[in-house]
Amino acid sequence: MTGPAAPTPSAIAALNPLPLDAVRLDPEGLLGGWQERNAAATMPHCIGQLSAYGNLDNLRRVTGDSDAEFRGMWFADTDVYKTLEAVGWSGGFPEFRADLTALLEKTQEADGYLDSYYQVERRDQQWSDLGFSHEMYSAGHLIQAAVAAARGAGNTQLLTVARRFADLLVRRFGAGAEDLIDGHPEVETALVELYRETGHEPYLALAKRFLDLRGHGMLGAGRFGPRYWQDHEPLRETTEVAGHAVRQMYLLAGVVDVAVETRDPDLLRTAERLWESALASRTYLTGGQGSRHKDEGFGDAYELPPDRAYAETCAAIGSFQLAWRLLLATGRSGYADEMERLLYNGIAASTALDGRSFFYSNPLQLRTGHDGSHEDTPSQRLTWYSCACCPPNLARLMASLHAYVASSTDAGLQLHLYAPGVVSAAGRALEVRTSYPWDETIAVTVTESGDEPWTLALRVPAWCREARLTVNGSLIRAGAQEGYLRVSRQWRAGDVVVLTLAMPPRLVAAHPRVDAVRDSVALARGPVVYCLEHADVPASMQSAAFEDLCIDTSTAVELGTGIAPVTLLPVLQVRPESSGALYREFATGTAGGTRRAAVPAIPYFLWANRDAGPMRVWIPLAPREA
Amino acid sequence: MTGPAAPTPSAIAALNPLPLDAVRLDPEGLLGGWQERNAAATMPHCIGQLSAYGNLDNLRRVTGDSDAEFRGMWFADTDVYKTLEAVGWSGGFPEFRADLTALLEKTQEADGYLDSYYQVERRDQQWSDLGFSHEMYSAGHLIQAAVAAARGAGNTQLLTVARRFADLLVRRFGAGAEDLIDGHPEVETALVELYRETGHEPYLALAKRFLDLRGHGMLGAGRFGPRYWQDHEPLRETTEVAGHAVRQMYLLAGVVDVAVETRDPDLLRTAERLWESALASRTYLTGGQGSRHKDEGFGDAYELPPDRAYAETCAAIGSFQLAWRLLLATGRSGYADEMERLLYNGIAASTALDGRSFFYSNPLQLRTGHDGSHEDTPSQRLTWYSCACCPPNLARLMASLHAYVASSTDAGLQLHLYAPGVVSAAGRALEVRTSYPWDETIAVTVTESGDEPWTLALRVPAWCREARLTVNGSLIRAGAQEGYLRVSRQWRAGDVVVLTLAMPPRLVAAHPRVDAVRDSVALARGPVVYCLEHADVPASMQSAAFEDLCIDTSTAVELGTGIAPVTLLPVLQVRPESSGALYREFATGTAGGTRRAAVPAIPYFLWANRDAGPMRVWIPLAPREA
Repeated sequence: MTGPAAPTPSAIAALNPLPLDAVRLDPEGLLGGWQERNAAATMPHCIGQLSAYGNLDNLRRVTGDSDAEFRGMWFADTDVYKTLEAVGWSGGFPEFRADLTALLEKTQEADGYLDSYYQVERRDQQWSDLGFSHEMYSAGHLIQAAVAAARGAGNTQLLTVARRFADLLVRRFGAGAEDLIDGHPEVETALVELYRETGHEPYLALAKRFLDLRGHGMLGAGRFGPRYWQDHEPLRETTEVAGHAVRQMYLLAGVVDVAVETRDPDLLRTAERLWESALASRTYLTGGQGSRHKDEGFGDAYELPPDRAYAETCAAIGSFQLAWRLLLATGRSGYADEMERLLYNGIAASTALDGRSFFYSNPLQLRTGHDGSHEDTPSQRLTWYSCACCPPNLARLMASLHAYVASSTDAGLQLHLYAPGVVSAAGRALEVRTSYPWDETIAVTVTESGDEPWTLALRVPAWCREARLTVNGSLIRAGAQEGYLRVSRQWRAGDVVVLTLAMPPRLVAAHPRVDAVRDSVALARGPVVYCLEHADVPASMQSAAFEDLCIDTSTAVELGTGIAPVTLLPVLQVRPESSGALYREFATGTAGGTRRAAVPAIPYFLWANRDAGPMRVWIPLAPREA
Repeated sequence: MTGPAAPTPSAIAALNPLPLDAVRLDPEGLLGGWQERNAAATMPHCIGQLSAYGNLDNLRRVTGDSDAEFRGMWFADTDVYKTLEAVGWSGGFPEFRADLTALLEKTQEADGYLDSYYQVERRDQQWSDLGFSHEMYSAGHLIQAAVAAARGAGNTQLLTVARRFADLLVRRFGAGAEDLIDGHPEVETALVELYRETGHEPYLALAKRFLDLRGHGMLGAGRFGPRYWQDHEPLRETTEVAGHAVRQMYLLAGVVDVAVETRDPDLLRTAERLWESALASRTYLTGGQGSRHKDEGFGDAYELPPDRAYAETCAAIGSFQLAWRLLLATGRSGYADEMERLLYNGIAASTALDGRSFFYSNPLQLRTGHDGSHEDTPSQRLTWYSCACCPPNLARLMASLHAYVASSTDAGLQLHLYAPGVVSAAGRALEVRTSYPWDETIAVTVTESGDEPWTLALRVPAWCREARLTVNGSLIRAGAQEGYLRVSRQWRAGDVVVLTLAMPPRLVAAHPRVDAVRDSVALARGPVVYCLEHADVPASMQSAAFEDLCIDTSTAVELGTGIAPVTLLPVLQVRPESSGALYREFATGTAGGTRRAAVPAIPYFLWANRDAGPMRVWIPLAPREA
């Protein structure tokens, strides 16, 4: 039983995912800790919110077991499915899973249809508004929940429900039937996974059909034009990501899935090309994507305002899922680098320390006096949202997090994400000890090995300028190839490999076309992006506006401790007093700043866990001298 | 007959508006040219579009003269009213005015109600959703159209219609009736003007009542929270502009109107304070306001992205109307400065050279490869919009533009805006000759004067560092006081006053808290903000991306000519080649730019009159040297 993406043996694949039980993350590590918090806090919280916000009643009113009004977004069922998917991957909460599966069985129509919004007073509107109805999007999440229950909990009851719905989709939208697609991609990747789980080829064919149909303006202009739902040009001709970021990422996950299963290198290249386009000009330093609030969309190239970053949590999760699929297909380390960046930044920032409140959008700057009353740009994390797609999406990702840590090939094992825990597959087993990403050493002990030599591959992230590897104390002089240090030998239990990834604090600059952060730097160490937060500003600088702090890059950034095991200590100064006028005549030679102090910068993902107040990732450089 | 705002003799007033026929703008001047273009192109265009887009049919279906479906926004009637207001101020298009007035008389209900959206199939929803219905907003525009017809065309037929509706409002929402307000302010300023026109005090009382009721959360949260419609705190306690920019500006216009007519200095101070707050941190260099597309709203303080500037044309017009009211009330030159800035930049940019296409939002930057398919951020002006509030708003402003040029007091005349033309009032007359804003001299000839000495006051804009005044060739040594150069004497016909406002090109910097334009400068000369546009980039630089051009501020900016009588010639250079990576390690000492050339910058208001392509107002400084 593998994790969320399990290509068939005939698929294009450079790497194979490990069985779900092949990896155990230790809770004392950051990743294992997040997974534990997810099970202990986030998942129970989500389960509780589904009752509190009416999602379960929405289903019960279909079966006549509730007379409440429909509540929430019209696609509120998907919050249920994503929670159920989390439950599936975790293997826990059996009572909730059983009750809900029974409820879904009861809710489903005889023909397989299942969507509580359209099963009571809107029955006559079923399938009538595919651009916005989210019916297939909803089917996709049902399918993914069912696959998770089968793989993670060994229960195929929900799979029967999901297949009935999928079979309806095949009958209604398969070859020879109506040419229609859903406005919100998601069913494509789900259908391929259902094919992988069941071997039933019509699911794969339908997914491919939806991709082929996309990009011909079939959905019309909607509210935001055809780019919004990636229907503006045929997929294979597309060179730039566009439109709604979550839709784009979910679609591309499906593109990779179809490409590898149908052995279509051209289609795979399309996904890679679009991924590259996103990373070249439309991705935040945190991995977040989507610069516009209005349509939750990618903006123009280099349009990356930190304050108005939308960077929806779900887009980051979609990007993570896409990167994993591309990593499996190609073996290229850049995809794993991106997973890591997302995990420690764009994704991690969305959840509060207690695991019970969340950001939907993830800005890289919050100003003094910010009006946090808008749900799309609150000053602190909220316990739920009127559109609550993100919290259960986090739950399902975190519940399956161990599936993304390592992979295998016939030649050996590959470690992509570093966290304490154990990895074992096909008679090969490792124990990983590390305080990564706080500490730069990762110790891997071979605990089991076969009689054949095999290759251990350890990813060297692109941010690392100096990686060092020892095997049983002896330095290995070979450099990283294609982003991995590979050691091939006859491994014996007890062999110890130590990888050291030098992590000096880094000052990061953006491409000069990113106007919004011109003449600023960001701080990073290892995979972690740092930020300044109001709570750390010393008393000597408190009289200055947070926005008037700037960085003196001539002084080295030291390490400190605090809210995280490692904080950074850039030297800041207060910008010279301004006249107060919003615009004034330009003059060079402004006096230098005053009141210098080393001010702790904290990991971005930990912001907003204290009193609400301003924060920024990009710190202005001290003014130019005359 | 005065113009759009005519305070009564008992109102708080530092200055008095002139009669409508007191000023004539010569078409060879910029302002007079715009007014002529408005009459010749924009107004006929708007009249045509009202037929083409169904606005007139919407009214005819109420009377049974059309069986078309309702078309356009639910407040589509207001496009009709604003066009009718423009027609009123212009005194032209008598047939259109007569036909439409007759249609409105026929459409109006016996009790005075008039709103075509709610008069056919939605009769039972009248007054049921004041937050979004715009019924009183619509009534406000009807009233303003009626006042314009009375004052500009001497026809009071529409005033009878407007009064019937206003009387209904008084009965339904006046003192003792239900406490309700409209989600879109506008009726307040209109009711005060109707009071001024008719002397009927209940209209003033109702306007005051609406202001008093506002700010107590009566409208609920709506889609964007109570700030959106300025219902979050009582007006007199408010210190910062907030929410939807057009709503805020229209509301404040009404606040000034009520304050001056009820002689309430505290309320007047409220409007001034909010205006100051807007200019201190929430106004673009062009005078545009509103930084967010999602809610068409003001963002946080200093959140002023040039690329995502919403800067709705209607907000600029509202700001202009507010500034005029504050100028009349206080006599402070800063309000006239703002009118001037808006007129030559934020407002002027919205209309194409031919007067037949328009911007709704007015960004200060358009990037290479911009996706102009969204109606809220097109690459070129559009001939109409699904929400077509802006074009007829421009029409009504331009039709009444001459009303804003000058004012009078018992002591004399004040010139606020400089344009060739004539000004005459109460036996005092002037002829103005100037090529302002291209030329820095303004020649004013007294053509008529009484037997008493009087004071001629000429505004010295805050951007001007060196103003020079001669009377009949003799230099007047007195400096400007409170923004005006004043000459008091016994004027005689033939006296010539020459004001010279030095207009060297200016490099403008923004407050350092405006992150979005850090380390950039804008170019201005006189009241005109300039921009770079792709079409002017010389061949030697065409291979570089437009976004890689930066400015060398060490070289003086020369003047040139081109699409405008005066262009500016900053020296630009191409930024050194970047690695292409979106993020990279920060390093000082980047090599200087290459390929220097003087590149014409054109007036911002003339952008997008050639092929679509990138534009920017804020130009990055050349990279720091090591």
